[in-house]
Amino acid sequence: MSKDASAEARLRETWNSCGYYNLVGMEVTRADESGSEFRIEVLPEHLQAYGTAHGGILAGLVDAAMGLAILGRAPEGEGCATVEMKINFVAPALPGPLVGRGSVLHEGRRMVVAQGEARDGEGRLVAVGTGTFQRIPAPAS
Amino acid sequence: MSKDASAEARLRETWNSCGYYNLVGMEVTRADESGSEFRIEVLPEHLQAYGTAHGGILAGLVDAAMGLAILGRAPEGEGCATVEMKINFVAPALPGPLVGRGSVLHEGRRMVVAQGEARDGEGRLVAVGTGTFQRIPAPAS
Amino acid sequence: MSKDASAEARLRETWNSCGYYNLVGMEVTRADESGSEFRIEVLPEHLQAYGTAHGGILAGLVDAAMGLAILGRAPEGEGCATVEMKINFVAPALPGPLVGRGSVLHEGRRMVVAQGEARDGEGRLVAVGTGTFQRIPAPAS
Amino acid sequence: MSKDASAEARLRETWNSCGYYNLVGMEVTRADESGSEFRIEVLPEHLQAYGTAHGGILAGLVDAAMGLAILGRAPEGEGCATVEMKINFVAPALPGPLVGRGSVLHEGRRMVVAQGEARDGEGRLVAVGTGTFQRIPAPAS
Repeated sequence: MSKDASAEARLRETWNSCGYYNLVGMEVTRADESGSEFRIEVLPEHLQAYGTAHGGILAGLVDAAMGLAILGRAPEGEGCATVEMKINFVAPALPGPLVGRGSVLHEGRRMVVAQGEARDGEGRLVAVGTGTFQRIPAPAS
Repeated sequence: MSKDASAEARLRETWNSCGYYNLVGMEVTRADESGSEFRIEVLPEHLQAYGTAHGGILAGLVDAAMGLAILGRAPEGEGCATVEMKINFVAPALPGPLVGRGSVLHEGRRMVVAQGEARDGEGRLVAVGTGTFQRIPAPAS
Repeated sequence: MSKDASAEARLRETWNSCGYYNLVGMEVTRADESGSEFRIEVLPEHLQAYGTAHGGILAGLVDAAMGLAILGRAPEGEGCATVEMKINFVAPALPGPLVGRGSVLHEGRRMVVAQGEARDGEGRLVAVGTGTFQRIPAPAS
Repeated sequence: MSKDASAEARLRETWNSCGYYNLVGMEVTRADESGSEFRIEVLPEHLQAYGTAHGGILAGLVDAAMGLAILGRAPEGEGCATVEMKINFVAPALPGPLVGRGSVLHEGRRMVVAQGEARDGEGRLVAVGTGTFQRIPAPAS
């Protein structure tokens, strides 16, 4: 069951105001039935000692992209928790824009498998991953 | 070949001064032949919308713990890059201290496999993972 | 650089005659630039104690599908070795036909990341995974 | 809650008589509170085109070692299903004996995380992995 536009806006607002998204400067720009989209600008504060984005930044982006792809399809109020994720880092992420995208591979009754990726400003693949998520039913009203 | 104490101190200083470690407040406290140890205090700025540490924080900690375990055993000047990592999130990380630890599972000539974990202040396992890393030889002097 | 049809036929023949493929009754039916396709019939000898295909059968199918997708794009004589793979088992595989498919996500100079999946006779997703592979250059002639 | 010796023997017998174990010649020799142990002899029928054991054989061994480590600790009649597994192949497995071992990393109420490995006759690490498993409660009697 998909959300209406105002429910999607509430979902994005909830996540865009959380601590981690603000700390790293990450923003979800879409989370609907077709998947999720994120934006982040890689800045000096995201870099490890070799001058490229730390794995934590990319893993956080891919994790979030998968999670919001799941929530974008779920009834309003339903949550999800990452059980595990695996990510390949295929190219260094230099300072500049990154786009993250997530989509659902398989929806089970209690578990969902999703995939996510990050691409740089030229569309080059930087990281790609999959994850297993546990659904958290919306509290009964 | 292990490092002497001053080489280990230089390694820790290099990483503890990088952008990402400072942004998230993460510190490597040991990186020697036996593995690595990290500390971070989970703060409101690390949280996702459900009030627990975002996966990016835990993934960054485990990735770093594995990478520094590898560098702690490598000749000075050698680097490493994360090819891929997989992490299981087994308990929510609430605000408070976390300890990360990494160790090497297999050292190949070009690739190293490591494992890492994060535990909370009571020693409870929060996240556990493995990763594949590519060695980056020290530049010839 | 793609292969001509006879090189693709040689590639399929080489693999379809190896011990493991024969033991489990798995066959590669396509391995070209667009990816790979496999067939296997799940039989009683593939089952674990609960009556569904053992994870080893599905993992072997997905591993092979990824590896042959890589070889289907590589110059003749080039090989590849699985560095790691991760697979989600999303539905039980009951006795009957399975189709495996693989494709390349990222081709690096020394490493390739691929994805693979297995679907049952109704097209239902049974397993999905990603893997990291190391290229093995063709021996110089 | 651990099993008594006869319950452990029944567990081993159940699995050692399943189709897949017999097809590949794999045997569980221990499955108790401390973990599991398996034996397999790599034979020509297990090999891929390069003359080493196919990934499916190693993945099946590691998957089984993790699963039986979980069942070795569970009440009799409880089952488990692999949600996902990730395995690093760190050395080629040549024809000869392999030992598989599994142990539990984290036991949750519904999910368990385990690790497994395979070593050759000289004790050299060949493959190492982790997996997420779902508990299947014993049918009420």
